[in-house]
Amino acid sequence: MMKEIKIFSPATVANVSCGFDVLGFCLDGIGDEIIVRKVDKKGIYISKIEGYDLPFEADKNVAGVSALALLKEANPDCGFEIEIYKHIKPGSGIGSSSASASGSVFAINELLGKPFNKTQLTYFAMQGEKLASQSEHADNVAPGIFGGFTLVKSLQPLEILEIPTPNDLYATIIHPQIEIKTSESRAMLPKEIPMQDAIKQWANVGSLIHALHTSNYELISRSLQDVIVEPYRSKLIPFYNEVKNQSINSGALGCGISGSGPSVFALSKGIETAKKVASAMINVYSETNIGFETYVSKINVEGIRILNR
Amino acid sequence: MMKEIKIFSPATVANVSCGFDVLGFCLDGIGDEIIVRKVDKKGIYISKIEGYDLPFEADKNVAGVSALALLKEANPDCGFEIEIYKHIKPGSGIGSSSASASGSVFAINELLGKPFNKTQLTYFAMQGEKLASQSEHADNVAPGIFGGFTLVKSLQPLEILEIPTPNDLYATIIHPQIEIKTSESRAMLPKEIPMQDAIKQWANVGSLIHALHTSNYELISRSLQDVIVEPYRSKLIPFYNEVKNQSINSGALGCGISGSGPSVFALSKGIETAKKVASAMINVYSETNIGFETYVSKINVEGIRILNR
Repeated sequence: MMKEIKIFSPATVANVSCGFDVLGFCLDGIGDEIIVRKVDKKGIYISKIEGYDLPFEADKNVAGVSALALLKEANPDCGFEIEIYKHIKPGSGIGSSSASASGSVFAINELLGKPFNKTQLTYFAMQGEKLASQSEHADNVAPGIFGGFTLVKSLQPLEILEIPTPNDLYATIIHPQIEIKTSESRAMLPKEIPMQDAIKQWANVGSLIHALHTSNYELISRSLQDVIVEPYRSKLIPFYNEVKNQSINSGALGCGISGSGPSVFALSKGIETAKKVASAMINVYSETNIGFETYVSKINVEGIRILNR
Repeated sequence: MMKEIKIFSPATVANVSCGFDVLGFCLDGIGDEIIVRKVDKKGIYISKIEGYDLPFEADKNVAGVSALALLKEANPDCGFEIEIYKHIKPGSGIGSSSASASGSVFAINELLGKPFNKTQLTYFAMQGEKLASQSEHADNVAPGIFGGFTLVKSLQPLEILEIPTPNDLYATIIHPQIEIKTSESRAMLPKEIPMQDAIKQWANVGSLIHALHTSNYELISRSLQDVIVEPYRSKLIPFYNEVKNQSINSGALGCGISGSGPSVFALSKGIETAKKVASAMINVYSETNIGFETYVSKINVEGIRILNR
């Protein structure tokens, strides 16, 4: 029996312009590393956290809470020790809590011989996410666990759809080092929205799903529009319009807010364009006193992966 | 040069539960027949209307208005005489005005040697539709002209997406003989809708597009939900809930209001189920004093077709 496993749990982009609360995709290159080890004593024990200052108590740590949700269901005759090597900054808007919450349950599931499917793992990870965002969401968790693009069709019952990823699609991310709380970012959204805007939004969601199925990059571009959320949330991100305009001018198919921000994502056809977009984004923030990090990544169709066992 | 053409312009179902104002599909077996003949004198001349009492003046008839919109653009050195054999009852909710508006421009385009593409024909037909519904819509026009399932991605610029149709998909329609005016039916809808409902709706739109691409009938079924419009408009259709429940109980994948009603549509896998659904619908209205007509139809992937030339 396998005793220990090390996994890479990638960052993710939720919402994807038109798909507020339902769409997401998976990044590569940036993510948390998690080591999980079987121990005799039942329970979840977080023994190491590197990178950021986060709670060690299992019931206060997103990776611990999701792991506890899994254990409650599996009730194995052992416990698990977790080491978290955190590379995704909490609050960055690219699924930091989600990566940890998903990573721990993915790893434990492997050590238990895979009793749970990906949808069940998504459910457990959502319990960890809830600790961070005060509400149940799967739009970051699902793309991490399934890989590629995912659509959260419904939460109750939980149903995740795997949408095909065109082969030459790359993401560029810029993370301006400012703080936006997910809870605040949600609170600023209206509870009611104009019917005419909603119609535009669901036309774009349908269109984006069709474009991903047909690898139609131009249609992806025309579908990456957000008439509902961006007008509100973009105000929280300094120089958002400049970053967006410069990204589009540099050839990006589209550009939007990653999750609830402050990270901004762009999608491009081909890595060369994605790199040009990164340069354009960097140019905007270089002229400000805001620190930033950028990532260029192929869409990660695999999702969480095993580094060694 | 071809002088005369006879075409069949099918009925269509708009909205398709979750896709209010953007989705539609094309029926077979029920539709208008239109004969168009080249004449020397410039202009549009409606020489015959059979079936229903509709205006002969070209600028007051939907087929005439759409034809005039085409002529304005094409400016040919001739005119056209139109005979309309109307089989779709006006106000039935299965695209009666749309079928006539689309049919005339499709036929004239053939006689002119196809100078216009399907999107351009949709635009002309929309001008006729506007006369009937007082607002610009393509959700009935597009499936008639393109066939199969269509998504109206945007009106300005006009962009129509052709969504794949699973091979074994059948529609059942019941048209209760009551009158609902499209304009009234639109006026009763709220101008603002809850964000949470809108999110459910666009998850279902995305999910339905994915399901059509993957011929996943069960997912089609789970996606055919309308949390926005049905709660309002279903009140205008007597026995709507009974028809819907009996359709689902008889095996329909889903059931909803066709366009703005009063027709109700159901989708089923296989013609046998579609026929059972028709029987179930008939049972409901047979016990009332409301007259009705029913149709069972394969999804028509061809759209408008030429009967002879």
